[in-house]
Amino acid sequence: MENKQEVIHLHHGSGGEHMTKLLNEVIFKILKNDILEVRHDGAFLNLQGNLAFSTDSYVISPVFFKGGNIGELAVNGTVNDLSMCGAVPKYLSLALIIEEGLSLDEFTEIIKSIKQTADKANVQIVTGDTKVVERGKGDKIYINTSGIGVLHEKANIKTQNIKENDVVIINGPIASHGMAIMSEREGLEFESEILSDTTNLNHTVLDLIERFGNKIHFLRDATRGGLASVLHEITTEINLGISLLDENIKVENQVKSACELLGLDPLYVANEGIFVCVTAPEIKDEVLEILQKINPNASEIGFVTAEHPSKIIIESAFGGKRVVNPLVGEQLPRIC
Amino acid sequence: MENKQEVIHLHHGSGGEHMTKLLNEVIFKILKNDILEVRHDGAFLNLQGNLAFSTDSYVISPVFFKGGNIGELAVNGTVNDLSMCGAVPKYLSLALIIEEGLSLDEFTEIIKSIKQTADKANVQIVTGDTKVVERGKGDKIYINTSGIGVLHEKANIKTQNIKENDVVIINGPIASHGMAIMSEREGLEFESEILSDTTNLNHTVLDLIERFGNKIHFLRDATRGGLASVLHEITTEINLGISLLDENIKVENQVKSACELLGLDPLYVANEGIFVCVTAPEIKDEVLEILQKINPNASEIGFVTAEHPSKIIIESAFGGKRVVNPLVGEQLPRIC
Repeated sequence: MENKQEVIHLHHGSGGEHMTKLLNEVIFKILKNDILEVRHDGAFLNLQGNLAFSTDSYVISPVFFKGGNIGELAVNGTVNDLSMCGAVPKYLSLALIIEEGLSLDEFTEIIKSIKQTADKANVQIVTGDTKVVERGKGDKIYINTSGIGVLHEKANIKTQNIKENDVVIINGPIASHGMAIMSEREGLEFESEILSDTTNLNHTVLDLIERFGNKIHFLRDATRGGLASVLHEITTEINLGISLLDENIKVENQVKSACELLGLDPLYVANEGIFVCVTAPEIKDEVLEILQKINPNASEIGFVTAEHPSKIIIESAFGGKRVVNPLVGEQLPRIC
Repeated sequence: MENKQEVIHLHHGSGGEHMTKLLNEVIFKILKNDILEVRHDGAFLNLQGNLAFSTDSYVISPVFFKGGNIGELAVNGTVNDLSMCGAVPKYLSLALIIEEGLSLDEFTEIIKSIKQTADKANVQIVTGDTKVVERGKGDKIYINTSGIGVLHEKANIKTQNIKENDVVIINGPIASHGMAIMSEREGLEFESEILSDTTNLNHTVLDLIERFGNKIHFLRDATRGGLASVLHEITTEINLGISLLDENIKVENQVKSACELLGLDPLYVANEGIFVCVTAPEIKDEVLEILQKINPNASEIGFVTAEHPSKIIIESAFGGKRVVNPLVGEQLPRIC
């Protein structure tokens, strides 16, 4: 694998010698840990208690973007999904579908990112799979991660726990990830770069659960479909509505400009490090204080109401009100 | 979704209304179970004991083939990987990467197969993900399943347990899956059809473990890279060799013809229902008896030897001997 111009070939997915070489010299070498080292068809784990189990495939294009790459996204995404269940993420699987012709350099960089991101989130990649498809049957690389976490004993996260007057909080400005990708695709340039917000949320979220237990009623990261889609998931499942205050939903300036340029509503644009937290009203100040230490733009964006069941209504700074509709059609394909 | 000519569009992967409709009217409707019904970002599971965790992506082409389809394969493959760890498979995740333009009929048929296959193997699909990629960026559908199983308390399956004079047994004739796919691709026709051998092996394998415990030293399904590749994995990890008897490795007649026609050695051709079982010599007759009740072609194909460490040598009916080399290059792309 010394030749830096080397690319992935179909034979790297054959189950034979070339695949073994790729596994040994890149994947296992970088991801190395005791569990992976056993090299069975599956990993042996010792876990006790209630578990959370989650999966996501990542098909983002381009695979390298400002603020991250598909490998980082694939680890953070599944780590975050487990966290939103109230679980401590522990182990991830990693399944790669590589398009023939991907450079070995790019591939190696992705695997290194996966390792770094996993370390940061304190999770281990314990089992995996590598497939190669012909040119034109993929797009550089698609990654699936599935994850197992152990439910925090104080966690009780479910839509059904949401009550009237609960407070809706988010941990930062929205739409950065989606607009980072779109700017990259459309070749847009702004005074300051738009960076994806991809990050692991597990440490933050578990800190909240540890402190406030079942007063944290609901958590969800606002990825595909954006903030609006997460709130819609909530209001379709419970017989309550949500009132939002437009001015409290922060969007960075260059992200706002990009949205305007492309005619996109930031409420529907994907995030990769933003989550919605619905809490009992009595803890909202403390929750905000914790989140604002990490990002000063964390804010209380609204509350749960019985006044307009199953509807989301947003109020502008000038008092105007409009209904936030569910996302219809396809806004940003392959954003994650 | 009434229109039978409907196809999957990019908007089915957007996180918006069309995706919700696809989930509700096809995926959740068919796969329905209590855990899936919670519809969180992850599934909540209660499992005790030592676990096995495995993942595989399925990129087989064509997605429908004689004897099965990609959905059936995706369930059986991961169920079998867990079984080979000595685990009782319990829960699967299901992540779909659909190419825009896949007919809704075909998609629905695949999801139905997944449900039937999961029921047969007694596992539940508990969490999932759906992505859609543009035409020409995929090939109908790629499926990832990851699975969690509970280790059987009597199981102790690892390469390191393999000893000199252990017996190598397989549960049926080899190369059927690979040749079913190749015949389909090449338009070959034989007197009798070649069917994929895809099946769930968990019930059989766990029966063996239940009866013979740690006298079952090693198990592995001989998928990508075929029987030869599994045996090579063994001999690279331990300082022992394997002696094989050619005449005991059964290949169905039409499979043999197809292999000859395409110049392929059945030893390297993928299987999806064949596994290698390395046992202590004293239980071999009982193991064979059990396996032959399911498939009369189950056979003792060889033994572990210290005479030629890390080498596999096959002896023909006429006494000729040859070394079985590791698979080099790419034999059958996208076979699973």
